[in-house]
Amino acid sequence: MAKYVIGIDIGGTNIKAGVIKKSGEVIKSYSIKTQASKGADDVLERIKKLTDEIIKENELDKKDIIGIGMGIPGPVNTDTGIVNFCPNMKGWENYPAAEKLEELTGFKVKVGNDVNVITLGEIWMGAAQGYKNVAGITLGTGIGGGMVINGHLVSGTTGAAAEVGHMKVEHGGKLCGCGQYGCWEAYASATGLQREAVSRLAVNTDTVIWDRIGHDPHKIEAKHIFDAAKEGDKFALSLLDYEIKYLSMGIANILNLLNPEIVVIGGGISLAGDILFDRLREKLKEETLKVALDAVKIVPAKLGNDAGVVGAAALLMKL
Amino acid sequence: MAKYVIGIDIGGTNIKAGVIKKSGEVIKSYSIKTQASKGADDVLERIKKLTDEIIKENELDKKDIIGIGMGIPGPVNTDTGIVNFCPNMKGWENYPAAEKLEELTGFKVKVGNDVNVITLGEIWMGAAQGYKNVAGITLGTGIGGGMVINGHLVSGTTGAAAEVGHMKVEHGGKLCGCGQYGCWEAYASATGLQREAVSRLAVNTDTVIWDRIGHDPHKIEAKHIFDAAKEGDKFALSLLDYEIKYLSMGIANILNLLNPEIVVIGGGISLAGDILFDRLREKLKEETLKVALDAVKIVPAKLGNDAGVVGAAALLMKL
Repeated sequence: MAKYVIGIDIGGTNIKAGVIKKSGEVIKSYSIKTQASKGADDVLERIKKLTDEIIKENELDKKDIIGIGMGIPGPVNTDTGIVNFCPNMKGWENYPAAEKLEELTGFKVKVGNDVNVITLGEIWMGAAQGYKNVAGITLGTGIGGGMVINGHLVSGTTGAAAEVGHMKVEHGGKLCGCGQYGCWEAYASATGLQREAVSRLAVNTDTVIWDRIGHDPHKIEAKHIFDAAKEGDKFALSLLDYEIKYLSMGIANILNLLNPEIVVIGGGISLAGDILFDRLREKLKEETLKVALDAVKIVPAKLGNDAGVVGAAALLMKL
Repeated sequence: MAKYVIGIDIGGTNIKAGVIKKSGEVIKSYSIKTQASKGADDVLERIKKLTDEIIKENELDKKDIIGIGMGIPGPVNTDTGIVNFCPNMKGWENYPAAEKLEELTGFKVKVGNDVNVITLGEIWMGAAQGYKNVAGITLGTGIGGGMVINGHLVSGTTGAAAEVGHMKVEHGGKLCGCGQYGCWEAYASATGLQREAVSRLAVNTDTVIWDRIGHDPHKIEAKHIFDAAKEGDKFALSLLDYEIKYLSMGIANILNLLNPEIVVIGGGISLAGDILFDRLREKLKEETLKVALDAVKIVPAKLGNDAGVVGAAALLMKL
């Protein structure tokens, strides 16, 4: 008899949900509007309704449902199930989300930070299967991460662990979205790389990329840069060096601090493939203690669009 | 009936040992030569003899001894008791130190990295009593550290976790003893601060320190700098700014990554007192996420000369 987990990924705009077999297969996905301004209680009420619908529509037996895992867009203590707060969402301050949803649904509920749990998902069904000491990094608009030590997701004292994007890589460096200067994500995220590219295009357009973006610097994306780098374009190769310089500094810090077995890199930047991963590993030799670098695999993430929902569901699984 | 732990701190030159009551009181301390060139088996044989002497001399009943905790100067997996290697010590490669000493002595043995375990000691008997999420940092000749998460000492995949001193704070920066460039300890350790002071004295000796060190720049120590800073000496205050700049960058990384409840700072630099801790906290506001900084106490270490032995013994205690 099949067992199921319901994974919920709460975002500022949409709530995604998935029915997932214990084997990891996503059977069906759902999406509803978050309507964050209505407050946390209201959001949970609608999640309760959604789970009722999911159960009915998929003709599930309640006793076959292991529980609900929920990813939250803010700092949350995964051991207590209490959310610290959610930026831009009303009513989540010190909110006992797990307990509340348990009361509403009668199911076992585990909650975690939406980005942290992606690392759990990679251990359950992705690139880190079989590993117990894992650092996950997502290089997208910003840089998020998750740390699993001895099979346990580290959430920190106030749920703010693994805020890797805000490690500082330059004293008084580039302004970050968080309001501070020199954060890792202001450099090595997809957006950080794009900012540097736009700045360079202001003084140098001698690149195959220039025509491809219709002479509009703001159309440049990480993919343009990696594609052109693979073709040997000098402008793109120099930007790749820039990315590697900062990416390696942040990852070296993580390796020297945590000595993980595997680092899983997701997000837009990770799609660059070998041209990025090979150079990254080479650069890391200059910045990481040998005993830590020799021990670690560095691989691209495997989970795609379902990462949030699968990660949330993974909170319920023994990994 | 009193219970005792034997703490052993193996160094490159000396092995220190202590008989410690379960209450944390160090009853008696011992020291013998390491004679590292004779190899790991020989070192353990002599530790076995030393424990026999300790038991006899203190008229201890074997059944009152909880076990032996041992700090090792190299990467070690504290869960398995296997030492990865010890720089400058012969025969410790993949050496099952805990198992071997258990066989020799008949006591329960736990091993840990000598610097990592100091953080356990601070939880047991020092500045971090009652805390479960603790980062310990020792600012001495280098920068060492230890991380305790949910009450568990993190040793990493190959025992190299918490090598905080080798986080990079400057791209291609100052040469570090490890052979790499820009490591945190090349800047913010007592030695790092001293190096910067010597370099500045080559061009500016307008400081009260100059007479105090008999016009010999290499005699300058961290204490001279902090004493003079407290007197308002401009040269010293500028060096204090330098120390704070780098100290805060490394600690901010640790806070953004681990979100601990408390950071315990030991070693020579930590003796500076409020003039350092107050400015450090102020500077950290620019570099740490508020949710992580608000949650954390930053305090000086309490354990002094016995830190290594007490920390090793703490491996046996339920913290």
